[in-house]
Amino acid sequence: MTDALRTKRTEVYRLPTRGTYERKTIHAILDDGLICHVGFIYDGSPFVIPTGYGRAGDLLLIHGSAASRMIRALRGGAEACITVSLVDGLVLARSAFHHSMNYRSVVVLAKGMLIDEPEAKTEALRVITERLVPGRWEEVRQPTPQEMTATSVISFSISEASAKVRSGPPKDDEEDYALPIWAGVLPLSLTSGAPVADERNLPEVELPDYIRSYKR
Amino acid sequence: MTDALRTKRTEVYRLPTRGTYERKTIHAILDDGLICHVGFIYDGSPFVIPTGYGRAGDLLLIHGSAASRMIRALRGGAEACITVSLVDGLVLARSAFHHSMNYRSVVVLAKGMLIDEPEAKTEALRVITERLVPGRWEEVRQPTPQEMTATSVISFSISEASAKVRSGPPKDDEEDYALPIWAGVLPLSLTSGAPVADERNLPEVELPDYIRSYKR
Repeated sequence: MTDALRTKRTEVYRLPTRGTYERKTIHAILDDGLICHVGFIYDGSPFVIPTGYGRAGDLLLIHGSAASRMIRALRGGAEACITVSLVDGLVLARSAFHHSMNYRSVVVLAKGMLIDEPEAKTEALRVITERLVPGRWEEVRQPTPQEMTATSVISFSISEASAKVRSGPPKDDEEDYALPIWAGVLPLSLTSGAPVADERNLPEVELPDYIRSYKR
Repeated sequence: MTDALRTKRTEVYRLPTRGTYERKTIHAILDDGLICHVGFIYDGSPFVIPTGYGRAGDLLLIHGSAASRMIRALRGGAEACITVSLVDGLVLARSAFHHSMNYRSVVVLAKGMLIDEPEAKTEALRVITERLVPGRWEEVRQPTPQEMTATSVISFSISEASAKVRSGPPKDDEEDYALPIWAGVLPLSLTSGAPVADERNLPEVELPDYIRSYKR
């Protein structure tokens, strides 16, 4: 099962030691990301659109306006490539050539499948919303039938995929370690700041615990 | 000139008030990003690969191993879509439907062009490296002829592009403002931590000012 998500198309050719096809690693990276980049072909040209997403088991879920180019391209079962990338640091080597980044990325190749059945569709929207801030879905006004119609949900099977990970210090050519050049890593992370309340919140409304304790 | 980068293909159809085609806005977002997602067609399928980049005037520059699938797909002038996305916050509305993110994104549609001329190629690599940490290029060991051969540089003209920006508080349906639900924004930003020195740095090597003062 370890290599189940590996195919010729998802094989990591460049720096293959950075590649992995393990479901567990792929899921963990997907669960840590906030947005994905969806690649699809429209009118013969490649397009890449950023969007939020969710994961439910082996399904990756996105949503969008039923009228959008992305949804129209994908609802009919067209091929897509969904990529999630997390940047963890800048890797400053002694040589220009070995400069790099620390990162975790996942590439999923799949055909889109429209989720139309109302219960499955609502559950998918719940998963996508809960991924932003766990605890949110139960609190908010649920979608109306009109809102459900305006929104399309597309699912992708996470069955042909790869992850690529780089971590740790720079790797320089052996003779370059003798150079008097500072080398190392500048860590980077997506960090959350203090919540900004909407000015139109009702006076009695307090900041919920699940938002107060939200940390990235 | 304002609309110079707008074409039918880059027009923002969904929520068009969030779209802009101004060169200044597009350049500013590109200059604030760290990685781009490059979409291209390979063997009839869409692929999306994350990578660093640089901007020199109206050119977007990427580099990669000459042997990589991305470079092989693009060096011959194939169409690409390069997307840069910055997430600025989670937008928590009173209704599930109006949840959103604050973001700035740019989509560039262009054909790749290989930069082979040695001086232009070196300058492109300098631009890509300097974007990571300004001041770095001058400090480090310059590329050898072998390293130059192993690296390909592809440029894309930023002439067909659009930016999409969302900022500010949630926008709820008027009647939902009466609901006793906390709404607001959770700000997010890619933040740098304290530099981590490589254990093999020479004892006399000090942290350079341009790294000490690096802030994101």
